[in-house]
Amino acid sequence: MSEAMSKAASTRGARRRAQTRAALIKAAQQLIADNRTNVAILEITQLADVGMGSFYNHFESREQLFEAAVDDALELQGAFLDQVTTDLEDPAEAFARSFRLVGRLHRHFPELSKVILSQGATLVTSDHGLAPRALRDIRTAVEAGRFSTGDPTAALLIAGGAALAIAQHLHEHPDVDDAALTDSVTESLLVMLGLSAADAREIVAHELPDVGGPLEDFWTTSSGESA
Amino acid sequence: MSEAMSKAASTRGARRRAQTRAALIKAAQQLIADNRTNVAILEITQLADVGMGSFYNHFESREQLFEAAVDDALELQGAFLDQVTTDLEDPAEAFARSFRLVGRLHRHFPELSKVILSQGATLVTSDHGLAPRALRDIRTAVEAGRFSTGDPTAALLIAGGAALAIAQHLHEHPDVDDAALTDSVTESLLVMLGLSAADAREIVAHELPDVGGPLEDFWTTSSGESA
Repeated sequence: MSEAMSKAASTRGARRRAQTRAALIKAAQQLIADNRTNVAILEITQLADVGMGSFYNHFESREQLFEAAVDDALELQGAFLDQVTTDLEDPAEAFARSFRLVGRLHRHFPELSKVILSQGATLVTSDHGLAPRALRDIRTAVEAGRFSTGDPTAALLIAGGAALAIAQHLHEHPDVDDAALTDSVTESLLVMLGLSAADAREIVAHELPDVGGPLEDFWTTSSGESA
Repeated sequence: MSEAMSKAASTRGARRRAQTRAALIKAAQQLIADNRTNVAILEITQLADVGMGSFYNHFESREQLFEAAVDDALELQGAFLDQVTTDLEDPAEAFARSFRLVGRLHRHFPELSKVILSQGATLVTSDHGLAPRALRDIRTAVEAGRFSTGDPTAALLIAGGAALAIAQHLHEHPDVDDAALTDSVTESLLVMLGLSAADAREIVAHELPDVGGPLEDFWTTSSGESA
């Protein structure tokens, strides 16, 4: 083979590899959305329309695939939240709206919620997904003089830990109102970040954009890899 | 056997069972304190001085034993924190002191910290260990007019989630100052709970009682079951 041909073949190979991985992730996300995470790897590869053997070229276990699927989903989710907060001029409200929407995910996608919980506090310290976006929002609001916290990292740990604890609490208490709990936590976080109690209360009373439909579409039609 | 004899035998049996369980838990706590959780079950039973077969009368797996050991340790830890806060008249400071001491556990007991992390957000919603004590402290401070939060459950989820996120962050960043981070988070939590920024700052600047020695003793000499 010429050098050019060999390079083209290697590019094709890399592309095919990426397509297989994306297909597996998309299948896993579909299974999570359908609340069917307890399936055999054969079933996953059939759903992804890839060879059974190719699974282990990409993932060591079913758990690892589901983690990658959630990681990818949270990255897309973050992009989605960025999108539905662009109309807001107040960075404090952008933070609040994102937090309020994330807390409303768990009842919609209980299996996603379970996989999130199984990853635990690593999500709070992750450098992709929702954590870096929350940190960015906190910093922007501090720069704009809306938040007064002197330690954005501490604020992120608190907000992220709270998001995780909300998931656990909702999971254990199917009767608890997810919206009321999430808004109550958001209100407390806003006070912690420097807003007055009255301002915090007002912000969490604001109507949220209707993202139910877009969320479902987003989750079920997302094309696997976000990169 | 007479009824009395049979009852005595059954009481003896129950007592022996409880002793075996306590010995296994104490052995597991010792292994956690020594950072040696990756041991065979045979080694655990030898350390506990009980028969290998009796392990499975009490626990399904090594992981389940370590969970019970941490659960028991956190219950004892809670009792210990209760003890070192009895001198405080201000319930806000009692909450703060406990939170500040818990954040300082992770560097002292990295393996305990890891087992705690592996249990994740379930610890925040648990009805024993540290969570119910934190909720009690929050409620006491609200009743005393020191905290003004209207939703103690939301406050608990935030504080508990933050405690978990601190553990994860310290685990991932061995160079981070555990005391500084924990105090910064505590300060933010106190503001969230209703204290002024100045009051919050003052409280986390208070000296902590020297619990290093007692903590080590406490952890290594605790007698297994706390009940």
